[in-house]
Amino acid sequence: MPSAQNWLLLLTFEGTCYHGWQIQLNTPTIEDTLEQAVKRLTGESVKVHGAGRTDTGVHALNFTANFSTTTQNFKTAEKWRVALNAVLPNDIVVKSAQTVNADFHARHSSIGKRYRYLISNLPYQSPFSRSQSWWISYDLDIEQMCKAAKILIGKHNFSAFRAASCSSTSPVKDLREIEITKVCSRYFTLKIEMEANSFLQHMVRIIIGTLVEVGRGYKSVGDITQALKSGQRKQAGKTAPAHGLYSLRVIYPKGLIEWPKELIDN
Amino acid sequence: MPSAQNWLLLLTFEGTCYHGWQIQLNTPTIEDTLEQAVKRLTGESVKVHGAGRTDTGVHALNFTANFSTTTQNFKTAEKWRVALNAVLPNDIVVKSAQTVNADFHARHSSIGKRYRYLISNLPYQSPFSRSQSWWISYDLDIEQMCKAAKILIGKHNFSAFRAASCSSTSPVKDLREIEITKVCSRYFTLKIEMEANSFLQHMVRIIIGTLVEVGRGYKSVGDITQALKSGQRKQAGKTAPAHGLYSLRVIYPKGLIEWPKELIDN
Repeated sequence: MPSAQNWLLLLTFEGTCYHGWQIQLNTPTIEDTLEQAVKRLTGESVKVHGAGRTDTGVHALNFTANFSTTTQNFKTAEKWRVALNAVLPNDIVVKSAQTVNADFHARHSSIGKRYRYLISNLPYQSPFSRSQSWWISYDLDIEQMCKAAKILIGKHNFSAFRAASCSSTSPVKDLREIEITKVCSRYFTLKIEMEANSFLQHMVRIIIGTLVEVGRGYKSVGDITQALKSGQRKQAGKTAPAHGLYSLRVIYPKGLIEWPKELIDN
Repeated sequence: MPSAQNWLLLLTFEGTCYHGWQIQLNTPTIEDTLEQAVKRLTGESVKVHGAGRTDTGVHALNFTANFSTTTQNFKTAEKWRVALNAVLPNDIVVKSAQTVNADFHARHSSIGKRYRYLISNLPYQSPFSRSQSWWISYDLDIEQMCKAAKILIGKHNFSAFRAASCSSTSPVKDLREIEITKVCSRYFTLKIEMEANSFLQHMVRIIIGTLVEVGRGYKSVGDITQALKSGQRKQAGKTAPAHGLYSLRVIYPKGLIEWPKELIDN
């Protein structure tokens, strides 16, 4: 019997029709759809390990997932890519594939993640980005949002920015960066990216919701300092909608994983 | 009885779910959806005159349509805008409204149209622009496409670039401009705009399909000269898919219609 080969996939998906990454009973998920695709191609029931769980409706530009298989049907990474795309629905796309060591795990081997959140701050909701950005019609004070963001950067106990159902062992995360960029596009006008060693459940969406409340003048920059200190969820803002959120980058130790540059969506 | 008021709407729509503009039996169209919206708000059965017919799946960034009503329910343009958006599905959006003279007609009063066609020339099909651009995985020679486009510019008999079912009285149109732009975006990579006094049925899509065949090397620049001269549909290229096409601008005599600049999608 041939030995198993560990394959790593670079994925992009439009999450609108899926209940997030993780397999659930009677509801389509990204993991489930990928495992069915592998089964259809190989006959094998494999476990596809994603770089993290994602919420219902969340998208991905450069997500990673790995699985181990003994099949010899597809000998090259390109053959895997083409075959998987042929059986996957067209809202989940394999951009690239590569072989990795047997002990590589898309989530456990990662040392950080970067997310992007898109806001359309326009007088009307564009029909072209309805499910791909959060439409906010009122004015936002970006300067105040940046001041509030600065308070959150660093290693903190993020208990105030964590879903009640979060199962993470520690609420302490190192939020390395929050970048707020104004963009001139008919798809979105505000791009907020954040990077951390890892994130608590709903942490990105609660931070975004909180920053928007600051931008709207509902919360002051001082309120954010207070919320962070308090560790109380109710002191932070509302959870921003999932459909503005994109998994942008899964970060691995330098040199471990390389993808063709032209395939990395920025 | 109050006199009728003629209202002009500035519209954007995602055409995926509609069988084009014009009312058809048992199938949703943009016109039909707008007329139902007006009826729901006023009780009146009005005719909504669009700036032109559009094909199934074609989108619009700045489309215009007008209708006449005696209702006094909505006294200002802003009230019409808000009320219509409240009852319209969210893939059709009224960006602005204004009163116009009784003899103004969205189509008959126009003196030109501008269309945009988006192509994603990427190694994989982005799940975020599946229904909003034509995905072409092979390389395109933009320089040759530009040379072929130049041949088509001007006043010509465009019989070779016309659907068999086209009902236009004359095949002679003045194609004022074709602009081909390379773009760096994850939504699309090639933007082709064209402007004419008016267009024959499928003319934009046949021109795009023909230019792509030139870009791919299937047709030479000389073939395009020949196709134009021949007036024979079979000498031009295939009709490009509708889902990459956007109605970009309806052109009226200078000074006749002004919209707030920030509402015009570019």
